[in-house]
Amino acid sequence: MIKKKHKAAVIGSGNWGSVAAKLVASNTLNLDSFHDEVRMWVFEETLPNDPDLEHAAEDANMLVFVTPHQFIEGICKRLVGKIKGDVEAISLIKGMEVKTGGPCMISSLINKQLGVNCCVLMGANIGDEIAMEKFSEATIGYREDKEVAQRWVQIFGTPYFRVSAVSCIEGVELCGTLKNVVAIAAGFVDGLEMGNNAKAAIMRIGLNEMKAFSKLMFPSVCDNTFLESCGIADLIITCLGGSNRKVADAFARSGGKRSFHELETELLQGQKLQGVKTTGEVYEVLCQREWQQSFPLFQTVHVICTGHLPPSAITQQRLYEN
Amino acid sequence: MIKKKHKAAVIGSGNWGSVAAKLVASNTLNLDSFHDEVRMWVFEETLPNDPDLEHAAEDANMLVFVTPHQFIEGICKRLVGKIKGDVEAISLIKGMEVKTGGPCMISSLINKQLGVNCCVLMGANIGDEIAMEKFSEATIGYREDKEVAQRWVQIFGTPYFRVSAVSCIEGVELCGTLKNVVAIAAGFVDGLEMGNNAKAAIMRIGLNEMKAFSKLMFPSVCDNTFLESCGIADLIITCLGGSNRKVADAFARSGGKRSFHELETELLQGQKLQGVKTTGEVYEVLCQREWQQSFPLFQTVHVICTGHLPPSAITQQRLYEN
Repeated sequence: MIKKKHKAAVIGSGNWGSVAAKLVASNTLNLDSFHDEVRMWVFEETLPNDPDLEHAAEDANMLVFVTPHQFIEGICKRLVGKIKGDVEAISLIKGMEVKTGGPCMISSLINKQLGVNCCVLMGANIGDEIAMEKFSEATIGYREDKEVAQRWVQIFGTPYFRVSAVSCIEGVELCGTLKNVVAIAAGFVDGLEMGNNAKAAIMRIGLNEMKAFSKLMFPSVCDNTFLESCGIADLIITCLGGSNRKVADAFARSGGKRSFHELETELLQGQKLQGVKTTGEVYEVLCQREWQQSFPLFQTVHVICTGHLPPSAITQQRLYEN
Repeated sequence: MIKKKHKAAVIGSGNWGSVAAKLVASNTLNLDSFHDEVRMWVFEETLPNDPDLEHAAEDANMLVFVTPHQFIEGICKRLVGKIKGDVEAISLIKGMEVKTGGPCMISSLINKQLGVNCCVLMGANIGDEIAMEKFSEATIGYREDKEVAQRWVQIFGTPYFRVSAVSCIEGVELCGTLKNVVAIAAGFVDGLEMGNNAKAAIMRIGLNEMKAFSKLMFPSVCDNTFLESCGIADLIITCLGGSNRKVADAFARSGGKRSFHELETELLQGQKLQGVKTTGEVYEVLCQREWQQSFPLFQTVHVICTGHLPPSAITQQRLYEN
């Protein structure tokens, strides 16, 4: 009896896309239950009709999505009807879409548009370091099918890239999304030179709001998810070195006088900041559901980003009113 | 009717001792229910028989202890029979004593020796920054008496120094103690230039071991304590900038060839490192109770500190065997 081999494809772009493809390809080469060939479709904003997308996906049954989050909807639309019936997907994309009906996680969007089960992979993993095979961790979030999650662990994990799977997809995905809001707050603290005590306090309050927000959105979210790599570890990395922190630092140093858009252009060489967009989306959810009072940090970050309070408002009294 | 006024005294030394005295004195000056005078006894290793200790404590009913932890037992012995009957104590001291009968927290030691109720105050609070009135947080842990804890919150808290009280004294105190073991691990990662992914991973694993250890030691310990300032926030600060991290970094850079003792003398101007002592004490507890397998990080830090494994063993396979 010949056992069916799984075939993976990577729909992605950027540094993280290349690193993910390398991890997958090196594992499939060594594992009998996977095809050696891994096709990668590289997303380019300037080539929106590249026909290779369908070619990359057509005979794969394990699709890895790792694109900027604003393009995933268009990519899914192009894949409808072009993929196999037994496809499993995983999203490495951080962010969420807020529609009039409420927020929609990227994994749900993929699930709904393509009719496939979709896991997520998040965590404290700077691509450059993984490319150099430095020790790193990641968390896979899955809904129900543990066997599928374990197949993703097999395909991504290496001795230097340790992957754990937890049955808490929304918690894992929201960690990856919400940490960017906290990183903006941490950047304000840095820019105002408020010190390490203040920065640690803001990161702590941020983690608590991430947890509370996730649990209100999805009551099934587990407490322990926030102690996985996707939670506390990714938050630490993002608040210490990420681009959201960097631009927020510059914004605070300018006293809020230069816009995020202007600083982004100047500091990030065309890369778009995820955090400010997410901050606005989170604020929309807080307003839709009348949760503002319970999330003083998230709310304050938005109010500062939109210029209605100065950056120094980040450590205001209201943080302690709940 | 004249309401009884509380009177505070600080038994302490060092930077944190002075800062604590400043916080207490500025609050008691403004609060009607406290005496304006706050006596401080400054502990000096070279003047062990300074008679002012008894004078400082004699008419106080709120005693703040903030000394290096190896001296607290001797100080308590000197105070037996010299203090008032209605005294409440609070310990700002990090560390624990491991006796043949098992570990003893500093607050328990004060409680047993002096027969007084003893709270603890821990958190992400670098003394220099608080002295400059930069925004900081702290956590008070208390056993049962919430009213007493609130009195400590009153006496320490300011708009720039935010103090919360939680009914989980052992959890708060163990956070302050165990974070130093994790900081040594983080220092190894820095010294070996293993990158931010690895450092965030080690901090995350460390927090999980802190929580598991505390809950095994004291089943009443609350999960949420690790999300207070004493938990995650203090861990972040200690792993980024503290002296334990610094010396462990140098130890790893020397390939484990120079001793902690030697590096301590060279780098800390006579200050004694808490973390290595605590690492040994924690290891003793792990052995006494046969818990080694459940705490691979704590155990590995000890084995590296004592020269039985190289610093690079810090990210070994065993971290993931549980």
